[in-house]
Amino acid sequence: MNYSCSTDTIKQYLQTIPIFKECSNDVLSSFSQHACIKPLKKGQVIFLSDEPATHLYVVLSGWISLFRETEDGEQAIIDILTTDALFGDTALFDQQIYSYSAEASDECKVIAIPLSVFKKEIETNHAFTLSFLSSISAARKKQDMELEHRILQTAPQRIGCFLLKLHANKKDDKTVITLPYDKTLIAARLGMKPETFSRALGKLKKEVDGMVVKGSTIELNELKDLATYSCRACSSISPCKT
Amino acid sequence: MNYSCSTDTIKQYLQTIPIFKECSNDVLSSFSQHACIKPLKKGQVIFLSDEPATHLYVVLSGWISLFRETEDGEQAIIDILTTDALFGDTALFDQQIYSYSAEASDECKVIAIPLSVFKKEIETNHAFTLSFLSSISAARKKQDMELEHRILQTAPQRIGCFLLKLHANKKDDKTVITLPYDKTLIAARLGMKPETFSRALGKLKKEVDGMVVKGSTIELNELKDLATYSCRACSSISPCKT
Repeated sequence: MNYSCSTDTIKQYLQTIPIFKECSNDVLSSFSQHACIKPLKKGQVIFLSDEPATHLYVVLSGWISLFRETEDGEQAIIDILTTDALFGDTALFDQQIYSYSAEASDECKVIAIPLSVFKKEIETNHAFTLSFLSSISAARKKQDMELEHRILQTAPQRIGCFLLKLHANKKDDKTVITLPYDKTLIAARLGMKPETFSRALGKLKKEVDGMVVKGSTIELNELKDLATYSCRACSSISPCKT
Repeated sequence: MNYSCSTDTIKQYLQTIPIFKECSNDVLSSFSQHACIKPLKKGQVIFLSDEPATHLYVVLSGWISLFRETEDGEQAIIDILTTDALFGDTALFDQQIYSYSAEASDECKVIAIPLSVFKKEIETNHAFTLSFLSSISAARKKQDMELEHRILQTAPQRIGCFLLKLHANKKDDKTVITLPYDKTLIAARLGMKPETFSRALGKLKKEVDGMVVKGSTIELNELKDLATYSCRACSSISPCKT
């Protein structure tokens, strides 16, 4: 594998990522000296659940799936992460064992930071610990909403919420949304079987006036039609803060 | 309401609660001076979602429901907490706004600590921040497993998992488990409608050899029969760490 370990390149990347923004120049240099950029191929496993943890990772580009497998061989997608997200960090509080597996869902780039370097910073640098605490709290709140949605939203509403979040990350205001990865993976991310996803997407089209699905592109007349349908089964105040 | 604010009593309680165990005597005194013990009646609301947050709470006894309500008037139970659990703390990272409502599910006692006192400690006391970080990480992991179970476990398996966790908290080794609160609330906690819960409990009885349900008491021949049925759809290594 071709690892790029240029300290300056990594430092430049880290400076743009929220959790590292508050770091002093010295701390950033320390992280950068020990870190590497890893390019990953689609399907490449980064680590497996229950393995001893050596690194945590920051996503630079692409999509990373976090998942677990049961004795029965069933797979649960816990999350699918993209740019700026941290993963593997939970091992810090889990006897240095990964509590989920991580795999590249497409071509990805990640920064690998040794867990020991990160741990030292958490143990000694209060400002950095507060940033990390804030990032963990945001992740906890996201999961909290996810659990709520699994209870209260119907399958079409969950797809609607997923599309609205994709739109929120867009720079432009157009009402065309492109699905970021294939529908089977989106279904798994939303905790649905592929056939449930297809049926629910069909129902969503009927419920939302003017919604058109062309392959991986979703066209809408007005975004608020999608919000009206999906967000009524969610406790968040509109516009959605999560 | 009859508030007990004896500093010594509160200090004694706090000393037994994991997150406060690492606190110095001075810190414990500071928390205790500003905190109150609040007795709560069944159904009493402690705070509502989207209200400005003034306090966080530690459960001393009883069961506290955390929930949210949607525009449609539907309620989602996020969690039901008991002794030693912290709640309201998420407001620290949420512009001092509660992101869920909290209500006493039976007669309860909680310690109320002003958020400002807690926040000052987090901002200045590194050892305490590390304890808090560890507690938030554990809460995040619990939610993570909860999400996994919603995807992979059937309704009877989720009930089985709930019973196994109740047994894990017991001091004795008897295979009699008493339900801690009424079945409608357990159903809501597990994200099921009451009728789904009844059907699923019936199915669980058939699947687990020798299981008998008498009102709020569950009798089992052997605990491992329940584990064999429920845990095969979970990724945790047996015996369950969560």
